[in-house]
Parts: sequence; C-alpha cells; structure tokens
Amino acid sequence: MPVNLLAPVAADLHPIAGVRIGVTEAGVRKTNRKDLTVFLLDEGASVAGVFTQNRFCAAPVQVGREHLAGGQAVRAMVINTGNANAGTGADGLARARATCVAMAKQLNVAPEQVLPFSTGVIMEPLPVERIEAGLPAAIADAKSDHWARAAEGIMTTDTLPKAFSVQVQIGGATVSITGVSKGAGMIRPNMATMLGFMATDACVHPTVMQQLARELADGSFNRVTIDGDTSTNDSFVVVATNKAAHSPIAALDSADGRALKAAMLDVAQKLAQAIVRDGEGATKFITVRVEGGKTGDECRKVAYAIAHSPLVKTAFFASDPNLGRILAAVGYAGIDDLDQTGIDLFLDDVHVAIKGGRNAAYREEDGQRVMRQSEITVRVLLGRGEASDTVWTCDLSHEYVTINADYRS
Amino acid sequence: MPVNLLAPVAADLHPIAGVRIGVTEAGVRKTNRKDLTVFLLDEGASVAGVFTQNRFCAAPVQVGREHLAGGQAVRAMVINTGNANAGTGADGLARARATCVAMAKQLNVAPEQVLPFSTGVIMEPLPVERIEAGLPAAIADAKSDHWARAAEGIMTTDTLPKAFSVQVQIGGATVSITGVSKGAGMIRPNMATMLGFMATDACVHPTVMQQLARELADGSFNRVTIDGDTSTNDSFVVVATNKAAHSPIAALDSADGRALKAAMLDVAQKLAQAIVRDGEGATKFITVRVEGGKTGDECRKVAYAIAHSPLVKTAFFASDPNLGRILAAVGYAGIDDLDQTGIDLFLDDVHVAIKGGRNAAYREEDGQRVMRQSEITVRVLLGRGEASDTVWTCDLSHEYVTINADYRS
Repeated sequence: MPVNLLAPVAADLHPIAGVRIGVTEAGVRKTNRKDLTVFLLDEGASVAGVFTQNRFCAAPVQVGREHLAGGQAVRAMVINTGNANAGTGADGLARARATCVAMAKQLNVAPEQVLPFSTGVIMEPLPVERIEAGLPAAIADAKSDHWARAAEGIMTTDTLPKAFSVQVQIGGATVSITGVSKGAGMIRPNMATMLGFMATDACVHPTVMQQLARELADGSFNRVTIDGDTSTNDSFVVVATNKAAHSPIAALDSADGRALKAAMLDVAQKLAQAIVRDGEGATKFITVRVEGGKTGDECRKVAYAIAHSPLVKTAFFASDPNLGRILAAVGYAGIDDLDQTGIDLFLDDVHVAIKGGRNAAYREEDGQRVMRQSEITVRVLLGRGEASDTVWTCDLSHEYVTINADYRS
Repeated sequence: MPVNLLAPVAADLHPIAGVRIGVTEAGVRKTNRKDLTVFLLDEGASVAGVFTQNRFCAAPVQVGREHLAGGQAVRAMVINTGNANAGTGADGLARARATCVAMAKQLNVAPEQVLPFSTGVIMEPLPVERIEAGLPAAIADAKSDHWARAAEGIMTTDTLPKAFSVQVQIGGATVSITGVSKGAGMIRPNMATMLGFMATDACVHPTVMQQLARELADGSFNRVTIDGDTSTNDSFVVVATNKAAHSPIAALDSADGRALKAAMLDVAQKLAQAIVRDGEGATKFITVRVEGGKTGDECRKVAYAIAHSPLVKTAFFASDPNLGRILAAVGYAGIDDLDQTGIDLFLDDVHVAIKGGRNAAYREEDGQRVMRQSEITVRVLLGRGEASDTVWTCDLSHEYVTINADYRS
C-alpha cells in the first residue's frame, strides 16, 4: 500500500501544447502489457536531461547523453519497459541506436533527434525488432491529453502510476507544467530505476535548460532514496515547448525564472516523493532534515546515512522509538571531526536527544506517538554551522522487520 | 541457520596461560541470562585494541581508548550484554568509569587497568549497580579453560557462540592462540555490534602490539559486513600474555613475527567470518574479491558496494543469477574514472561478463549452478592496476527477498 498516494486523475493533468504521447503493447518482455511509450515534440522545443552517475550506465543513457550533447533539436523520446539494455556492451549500444533510427524513420527526422530510455532486467539483449514493430501503433496513439497513459506506460513494479500537474502565471500568461515518474519498490527493486519526464509550455531559452534540469533534479530526484542502489538507467528529462505567450526566460534568477522554477520544482518533488511513497512495503514516509552543518555536503552525508540505515528503517516500520540508531547513523556518516556532544535530535516536535545524550524531559510515549504516524520528520542539529539539507525516504517493512521489531519487547 | 558454522567444542579451545575467564548472570536487562563476562589477566600481559570509527562511539569505547592510551598495564576486561551504554552522554561516561572502579576494587588494581565493553540497546542508562553486584560471582567463576563460556557470555542475538583456537611453533615453543567473537544478524541487527577478544601466550613486545591489533583487524573484522551499519560499540582486543618460552617478538616482519601474525590472522578471520555465517537469515556465505584496481582502497570501495547492495544480496538468496546487479554496484562504487569496458566478472569459475558486457559463452545454467551453492566467490577484475582486496558478506533472505525472487519468474 503506497503511503498517502493516489492514482492520478487524467482530467487533472494539464496537456502541454507541443507534446503528444502515445502508448502501446510491444511485447518487449511479456504480452498484454503497455510497455512502449513515445513522446512526440513539436519543432521549437528546448530539452535537457540529467542521467545516472553510475559508471556502468546503460546503453540508452550513453546514447541519450550523446544526442543531447550533439545539439540537434530533440523531436521524440522512446521509452520501453521490460528490458534495461544495461550491461550489454557494444551490442547494447547498437540496439539503442537502432531504436532511434527506427523512430526517426517514422517521423522523418534525424536519429540524433530521438532520445531512448529503457528500464527492466539487465544484461539481456534488447528485443529491438519488437520495439520497432510497436512504434507505428504508439505514434498512432499519440495525443496531448495522454499524460495518465504515459504514467502507466513507464511503470515497472510501481503499484500506482505517478503524475502531477500545475498551472502558474508567468509574464501574464498561464503556463502548464505536467510530469510523470516511475520508481521501484524497496521490496522488489528491479534495478530501482527512476525515470522522470516533465514538460511545460513555458518559453525557456535553450542556454538555461541544462541548469534548470540540474537544479530541479538536485531538489527532487537526487533527494530521495529507497535502498541506496543507484540504477544504471536513472534519467530525468525536462522539456519546454516554448508555446506560451510570454517573453522567453533567459535567466533562472529573473522573477519569471524563479516563478517557473518554483512551480516546476513543486511538481518534480511530488514526482520524486511519489516514488518513495510507492516503495514496495513502505508504510511510512520519512523526511530526514539535517541542520547546523558546516556545508550542505556534510548535511547530505548525514541525511543519507540515516535514510540508508536498515536499522533506522526497520525501527520506523516497527514504530519503535529505538532512536539511538539514528544517532549511530549520524556517527558513521563520515564527518571525521564530528563532536557527538554537539548533536540534537528531534522527531517532529519531540526533542529526543540534547548534546549527544538523551533529553531528560524525553518520554518514550512521545517518541512512540510520532513513530506511529504515517509521515514523520527526523531533524538532526549538528551544531557546527549554518548549512542544511533534506532527504526523503521510506521505512523497511515485512518479516525482515518483524524480527527486528521483537528486539525491544 | 548459520552457514557452515558449528558451535565450538570446549575441549578444542586451548587455554592461554595468564588469562582466566568468568561468566555470570547479572540481570543487566533480563534474568536467567549469562550477561556479564570478565577476563582476568596476569601481570605482564601486553594489550592493544581497535575500536569503532563511529563518531558517536559508546561510553565504554571512549573509556577503553583512554585507559589503553594511558599506558597502565591492563589487568581486566568487563563485558556486559543487554545494554550498550551508547548515546548516553556524560552520565554514560560516568557509568562506564564506575564499572571500572568497581572491578578495580575487587582486584585491588587501578581503575585505569580495567577495560569496559557493553553491547545491547542504546540510549538507555547502564544499570551499573547490577553489574557491580555481579562482579564477585564472575570473578569467582574465573578459570583458564572458560573460553567456551566467554563465547556464550558475550552473545546477544547470535544463534551460536563463536570461538576458535590454534597452536603454532614460535622460536621452538608451542604457542596457543584462542579467541571469541559476537556479532549480530542481518535480520535482527541490534546495533550489529561486533566484539572480538583474542589472546595468545606468545611473547610480544608492547611496542608492536598496536600494530598487530590493527593489522589483524584490517584483515578480518574490517573485511566483513552484514548490513553496512557501523556500530557505536565495535571493539577488538588482542592480549599477549608473554608466558611462552621464546624470545619476545619485537618486529612483525621478523620470521617469528610473521609466523605469529599468520596464525593469529587465521583465528581472527574465522572469528570475523563466523559473524557473517551467523547473520540472521543468512543462507549463503559470499566472498567478494576485487582485483586489478589502481589502489587497495578502490578495490575495497567496489567490494563494499557489492557486499552492501540489497539487490545483489537478495539475488544471492534467490539463487538468481541476475548478475547485472553486481555490475551496477561496481558502477556506483565511487570510482570516478572507471571504464566499464574494462571490467570482467566471475562467479567462482564461471566467466559471466567480459569487458563490461555479457560473455557470449556464458550460460545461465552455469551461473545458476554456482548461485545454488552455500559458499560463493564473486570476483571482479577492474582491469586498471595491480591492487586487490577481499570482503566477506552474506545474502539477504526472507519475505523481503521472496518477493524480489519472483521478479524474473
């Protein structure tokens, strides 16, 4: 059961002028499954992407990076599930390129104007002939109000499709922003690939697109973690179709730039958090906030140490305020000169630890009360500076935890 | 069920002249449990210790470090289970010191000659009065052939006591080496504290003891991982009682030094590996060997990335040769200039991946055959240098994995 997450209502997802989406069943791995999604972009769209930092990145990631770097206008994206085309060497690269060639032929554009994405099992050859055969049906299906279908088409082990949409006023025009994402469960993390696709009809100068994509990813997809595994295929793409009736945004720190980025970040965060809420077996949505660090980087290290700790995550599942586990994770996060006597810990509003020791006023039942909630904020004060950062994660449940939970009884 | 691990037979554990061990039930947390163990050392013993790198280290770790650094001859160690005395601030330090004072009184030595160790729940006050009350019985129980009792006395969630012993010829004398350890399960990792205590009657000059302890830890306890959590209380202590009839070892790179270290490393590795074999729910013992790195450090990074990956560990449990997951872990291990086309992967003798892609000669049934074994070696060749390193871990089982295992079916 996803944590406080509902399936999107198609009517709530604003179409984006200049983007059409088609989905079909190509039989990539199994039959009767929507496994092939295409995005068709009108001429004039600006596109930027952020990809996995995994050195063993998948073939489509390598090809997508290449095509974006080449500078030709992107006109289409092709996304298949069922096969990740990763760990497939030179043959995998050839198959990712063949996918682009096939799509380009259908649209009468150059192969370099197509971005390929794959998610699914790795080290198996991509059945590119089935994808090729499915493309005409996917293209024929393409409509601008198909965002809910896109959210379904890119799902793998997700239990719910994920899509969010907002409208915002930019330079006197109503601008729409819509996005979809897919993730993977803690419990069934088939490579845990995260894919995110966002589009807006806002007018954004191509020179700021990469910065926009990077900043959106840093504030959203790069702040969530399920199990710490970084996929070979993680990709996040931002499209601006430049169709809205306002002056183009040439700097993100302009008034219009800030307004657009804030609205897009809201959607990106919801998309990223939805992946955590749908972590298989997740019963709690946890916000880990670290303040008082010397640098944002050290705050992030501490936040991730907490968010990745199986001990912390199982304690959350059990609603067991075994909160020393959080302090232990702070201790091994990798800050060499950390002074434990400077550290405070809060669970929502409950002050658990002061200066590295248990708060004398802390009562177990207060910790218990917060731990029973489905949404919990862990706040750590490092007491050594002004920096802060936030990460979102889920608990770790099931029998793995059932045993853990017995420990303190 | 531990993986290929048997309970020690008391008669196989060589007593160490100059070391007596006593165990009692002090009721630290629960009644009817052997939870208090004392080691009594004759005058003239050399002692060194290696402790957790966790910045949130427990009070006994801080006190133990202090006492060792002070340079007074260690005459006793006191180990309680049930309470870790961690995350307990200044009060915890006072209680750890009080334990030493109480033990010192009993033995008529200085408190600085006692090392305290605690393992169990954290952020709860250590019931030092119960420990104090239990000391006379523990001391009265002390005998040199009580190593098997020690192995039991320090257990927390271990399903089996862990003790190993060897004899070796050093400078014409028969020298004995005996040790005990305790760990924690993957599935029920109550802080996952690892404790290890080893003693030998060999004669070792005090100036090389710290180097000996460090090198033994680096080759054993620092090479195993269950779930990646580093405890606040991890401690490893080496005692040389200097009772054997050979010339003292003043350098580890002497012939005698090498012989002693090799024999002690053998015991230390067995103690450390026993912790992995007894990881709760473990069904496989996995050796992760990384070769061809530029530095040992980068090999270690890669080995730990593999050994900590929930995806890799669940694949092992399922005997599912979903081996791309290993390549993915190599990719995110943090080697920035890693070239995926240089990487080979073996499962025991099976050559799975060549130059970053699937080996054309690799057959799924060969991978399957190795994956079904209870002991498996993963070997990764990075193809960029001469360094290598090895880490030992276990699989990740239970329902968490049952679901994972269904993915490829």
